[in-house]
Amino acid sequence: MDFRSDNVTGAHPKMIEALMGANQGTVSSYGEDPISERVTRKLSQIFETDCAVFPVATGSAANVLALSTMTPPWGAIFCHEASHIAVDECGAPEFFTGGAKLINLGGAGGKIEAKEIEAQGGAGKGVVHHVQPAAVSITQATELGAVYRQEEIAAIGQACKRHGLRYHMDGARFANALVALNRSPADLTWRAGVEALSFGATKNGALGVEAVILFDKTMAQEFEFRRKRGGHLFSKMRFLSAQLEAYLEGDLWLANARHANAMAKRLAEGLARLPGATLELEVEANEIFVRLPEAAIVGLERDGFRFNRWDGAQLLRLVTAWNTQAQAVDAFLAAAKRLLAANAA
Amino acid sequence: MDFRSDNVTGAHPKMIEALMGANQGTVSSYGEDPISERVTRKLSQIFETDCAVFPVATGSAANVLALSTMTPPWGAIFCHEASHIAVDECGAPEFFTGGAKLINLGGAGGKIEAKEIEAQGGAGKGVVHHVQPAAVSITQATELGAVYRQEEIAAIGQACKRHGLRYHMDGARFANALVALNRSPADLTWRAGVEALSFGATKNGALGVEAVILFDKTMAQEFEFRRKRGGHLFSKMRFLSAQLEAYLEGDLWLANARHANAMAKRLAEGLARLPGATLELEVEANEIFVRLPEAAIVGLERDGFRFNRWDGAQLLRLVTAWNTQAQAVDAFLAAAKRLLAANAA
Amino acid sequence: MDFRSDNVTGAHPKMIEALMGANQGTVSSYGEDPISERVTRKLSQIFETDCAVFPVATGSAANVLALSTMTPPWGAIFCHEASHIAVDECGAPEFFTGGAKLINLGGAGGKIEAKEIEAQGGAGKGVVHHVQPAAVSITQATELGAVYRQEEIAAIGQACKRHGLRYHMDGARFANALVALNRSPADLTWRAGVEALSFGATKNGALGVEAVILFDKTMAQEFEFRRKRGGHLFSKMRFLSAQLEAYLEGDLWLANARHANAMAKRLAEGLARLPGATLELEVEANEIFVRLPEAAIVGLERDGFRFNRWDGAQLLRLVTAWNTQAQAVDAFLAAAKRLLAANAA
Amino acid sequence: MDFRSDNVTGAHPKMIEALMGANQGTVSSYGEDPISERVTRKLSQIFETDCAVFPVATGSAANVLALSTMTPPWGAIFCHEASHIAVDECGAPEFFTGGAKLINLGGAGGKIEAKEIEAQGGAGKGVVHHVQPAAVSITQATELGAVYRQEEIAAIGQACKRHGLRYHMDGARFANALVALNRSPADLTWRAGVEALSFGATKNGALGVEAVILFDKTMAQEFEFRRKRGGHLFSKMRFLSAQLEAYLEGDLWLANARHANAMAKRLAEGLARLPGATLELEVEANEIFVRLPEAAIVGLERDGFRFNRWDGAQLLRLVTAWNTQAQAVDAFLAAAKRLLAANAA
Repeated sequence: MDFRSDNVTGAHPKMIEALMGANQGTVSSYGEDPISERVTRKLSQIFETDCAVFPVATGSAANVLALSTMTPPWGAIFCHEASHIAVDECGAPEFFTGGAKLINLGGAGGKIEAKEIEAQGGAGKGVVHHVQPAAVSITQATELGAVYRQEEIAAIGQACKRHGLRYHMDGARFANALVALNRSPADLTWRAGVEALSFGATKNGALGVEAVILFDKTMAQEFEFRRKRGGHLFSKMRFLSAQLEAYLEGDLWLANARHANAMAKRLAEGLARLPGATLELEVEANEIFVRLPEAAIVGLERDGFRFNRWDGAQLLRLVTAWNTQAQAVDAFLAAAKRLLAANAA
Repeated sequence: MDFRSDNVTGAHPKMIEALMGANQGTVSSYGEDPISERVTRKLSQIFETDCAVFPVATGSAANVLALSTMTPPWGAIFCHEASHIAVDECGAPEFFTGGAKLINLGGAGGKIEAKEIEAQGGAGKGVVHHVQPAAVSITQATELGAVYRQEEIAAIGQACKRHGLRYHMDGARFANALVALNRSPADLTWRAGVEALSFGATKNGALGVEAVILFDKTMAQEFEFRRKRGGHLFSKMRFLSAQLEAYLEGDLWLANARHANAMAKRLAEGLARLPGATLELEVEANEIFVRLPEAAIVGLERDGFRFNRWDGAQLLRLVTAWNTQAQAVDAFLAAAKRLLAANAA
Repeated sequence: MDFRSDNVTGAHPKMIEALMGANQGTVSSYGEDPISERVTRKLSQIFETDCAVFPVATGSAANVLALSTMTPPWGAIFCHEASHIAVDECGAPEFFTGGAKLINLGGAGGKIEAKEIEAQGGAGKGVVHHVQPAAVSITQATELGAVYRQEEIAAIGQACKRHGLRYHMDGARFANALVALNRSPADLTWRAGVEALSFGATKNGALGVEAVILFDKTMAQEFEFRRKRGGHLFSKMRFLSAQLEAYLEGDLWLANARHANAMAKRLAEGLARLPGATLELEVEANEIFVRLPEAAIVGLERDGFRFNRWDGAQLLRLVTAWNTQAQAVDAFLAAAKRLLAANAA
Repeated sequence: MDFRSDNVTGAHPKMIEALMGANQGTVSSYGEDPISERVTRKLSQIFETDCAVFPVATGSAANVLALSTMTPPWGAIFCHEASHIAVDECGAPEFFTGGAKLINLGGAGGKIEAKEIEAQGGAGKGVVHHVQPAAVSITQATELGAVYRQEEIAAIGQACKRHGLRYHMDGARFANALVALNRSPADLTWRAGVEALSFGATKNGALGVEAVILFDKTMAQEFEFRRKRGGHLFSKMRFLSAQLEAYLEGDLWLANARHANAMAKRLAEGLARLPGATLELEVEANEIFVRLPEAAIVGLERDGFRFNRWDGAQLLRLVTAWNTQAQAVDAFLAAAKRLLAANAA
């Protein structure tokens, strides 16, 4: 009963079946295999546009390879102050870009606002003393479990256009966001101006694979050099692509995400009913932020539940995943109810 | 019947079984799982020393993360002019080190010689105008299929010591070299002065995993930041470590390498008997370099055999792998015999 | 009558005399000349400690060469959000460090506070996902014309020590700060924990020279490689050193700074007496920030006075320099008085 | 009597006069001053084309800022193995380009040959495993004192064009080469395909200034960001530009170079007449490479003559400069004659 993250889970069995299926005969290395080609075609169908697709193995790799293709070393990248690229990648964006600067923005729920980009997106443009606004990166769903609406994505896209900025989406939890909204993948990305997407699969059931999807294919050649040079080009690429194929096959990705979101909703609704528990943020995808008394937290830990204390205090982050069981959720809620009652007494 | 490379092959079935075995329950991410710990212990036993072990997914990543930990940006890295880091990594070593310079050395069979390091290893030391000798990287087995003897490795190690240079071994085909020599892993590495080893598994039966083994553990902390920052730290690390565990279990790695080498020997001996075929280099591991008349090459291609023309001409590189079948070797030999005879007529 | 910056001024005549004096015979290049040696000795006397001295030609070069020697690529550098390194160097610190991250802090008058370093200086230490606190950089005098007191510098120094952080001072206007305080150069730097100082001369009467002073000489060797590699090692170094020698000779640097500060005080006191003018910040060195009505600003511009609008609005930055004339100050005050009166009418 | 280098000399008196002349009143910083504008116009006249001109203070800065604008991080730069960028800049080109690779070529007298660029200029183009041919850099005059003829420069230019390579000239001693040939500056640069020139002045009489001249002005904007970010943008730019203005005024640069070359010729002709002295390379500009017996070398050193032993042995490099006196040359010749005779006896 582990709610620490969606990356503590294993892989969906179909992923490993797919690896077995891909393990036949010899094929050309480095992505010139039939599975990789099929994945590109499939994603082009799903996103309703001809796009360039590059599998990599980690979300950080996806983000920083994309961003380094989108900004010069003297560029500025606007992002949320709680975003993965700003906080959790040990400066990988700065390393891969050759020293670009991340401009941290605020915003409720981990979402930046278009008006901020409107206001700051042209700052210092052409003045040699200052880094040059170059790109915007948003996270869908955010690190805080919120989901950008289509019109929010598009408004930021328009601000990017006005200021000549590149537009990147970190979609480590793109599937969770997608199923939370009644919109198509195209509507939530390139039709709203997004030019590159880190399309996550690892957290949603893969062993370890993400696809960088470039909607603006003029960036593809540079991206390929950067991927190779970053040590991120796999010789036996078929084993990355096979995971992506299984992920998309029969809409497994959507089913996994729907399940994770449903478990989050079940957990959130249960917590909302408990006196002494306070949900800090609306639950839109698969993350719950809940504030509990210290005694209850300690009790839950003693009972074997695992989760992260956000910022080290009484605010917990609970993450559900593609394989979270309803009974685990219910067990957590029962334990919390019992502990909160004891605490109140 | 594909002899292009040992990376066009799939994975040994035990690798995928191991992934299935690892796919149980939740575990801590980023390498703090029990499988990763077991792999470190196992490699410490095999190498008879307490070492730091970091799984990564590509050989380039292993090499450049190690080298960037071993040389400052103003350092010089001595390597063979045909080495993977010099030729096949699109400048990844320069990128990860922050601009160090690779000094290309010659040497038969892709092997550099200790006397070169003796002679050049102190060049410009302390003079601010020149890059500073910092590290040596050798490849075992080499890109040309040769194998460094223990005394050769140790002689280079002594030269490194004399000049204060770090010592790295690119062991993408370490297993193939090991089984070709009657020496222990320890004898061929740290006892001969090697401080960091890129321990390859991908080419020898894994889906995609290499271990960076640091015999000098003082480099471990910096390495960890560099791995993360390079986007090479896997959240679901268990799936890399599981491959390594299966690779080592029951000496699968040695069996795979012995098979590949035996097939190379079978192929080389067969070719040596064919008039019109000239082996260019002694075959010590799993690579054969053979010169054939153009007509025979075209005939082999027409018959469906696949291989690389080395430098685009009549010198072929044939690579055998853990799963090369004797009948594929024999079929190649039969076809070559027939085509050479026809050509001679 | 130009108050835009202290870098729009020329050089003190003694500087050019010194160049003439240095222009005799041949001397060894790259800093191995007698003048450079004398400058090192002289600065060691002035700072009462044996220090390493490296002349460079720009303030940005001084800052980023020092900082890149003080932080690893995955390091974090704490600085004020208005500091030169954060705002005015086009990302040079990120470039030279190989992608370190600047953490912007607030603080009145452009000064950061020790308690911020105490609080944040250990954040994420040892956790591979986050950049690692590595250094603190303060600006003396600040971009906003404020001056750190000795005890403020020392308090930050203690916080650095507690968290194992390197400590840098951007002293582009060090002389102006020094003469504003009744303390020795040693008290305001290494005795308070500062390990590296960008000792400015350009803004205070030189043609173009700054000295990087390393109080911790263990950094000297790395610094030398970085300076060379940055293209900042001058062959005819005597011409940089000669400026520094003239700067220090007979305390010219202190006299110049005293004059600039006195002119700033005259200007500030005059403005304080004018109804309609609001001094935004206390004037401690040679910068004045004053808010005026738009009509008065336009009038001053029409009258030929030059200055910068801070953030493009009605807040003006006026900078005095080593050669600002009292009559220029008085003329500005007279014009401002007249225009404010007209505006009020 | 110092023949070590042309950078051990001081500056021409007109340079310092020019600094005095420029030291009037306030002017805009960072190159927006009238002197800088005049220098751009003057160089555009001299080179008979509208070009972008950027003063910097060192030759390394000029070279690496230009090259980093001309090649991507995954690019390869072809140069001579004895060139300054390859040997004497401590890896600055690798640093500024973000890790590009220098491909060392041979060639008599330090000159690379067009046929090498023809042969290698397309190697690996488009193949993601290899660095991508991006630029060629030649040195005029070379480190070995040779001078490229117009047709040699143009032939390399054509090879660049064929392969889509950028073309850079390191002209630290451009004036010495120019006066050795009966051609115009335009003929020897952009008309022969050169797109960027490091136009040296420091070795030929300045205190410290070089101009990067971009004949392809589309590179200018990127160059400006790189210059600032490299710490190479001077606030009091007038003092760099004033040197350049004096350098060009009344063809001082040509007179200085003619003098240095004449002194080299006098020295070379004298040495050619001495039995026991062997000129290793034809003397075309201001460098002489002469082989002498050890006893004579020691004797010359004892007599107070200074020079460099090339590669530490009996091959001497003697460099003449704008202010080398004929009597110093004659004294050297007389001493050499005497010592050689004694040695032969």
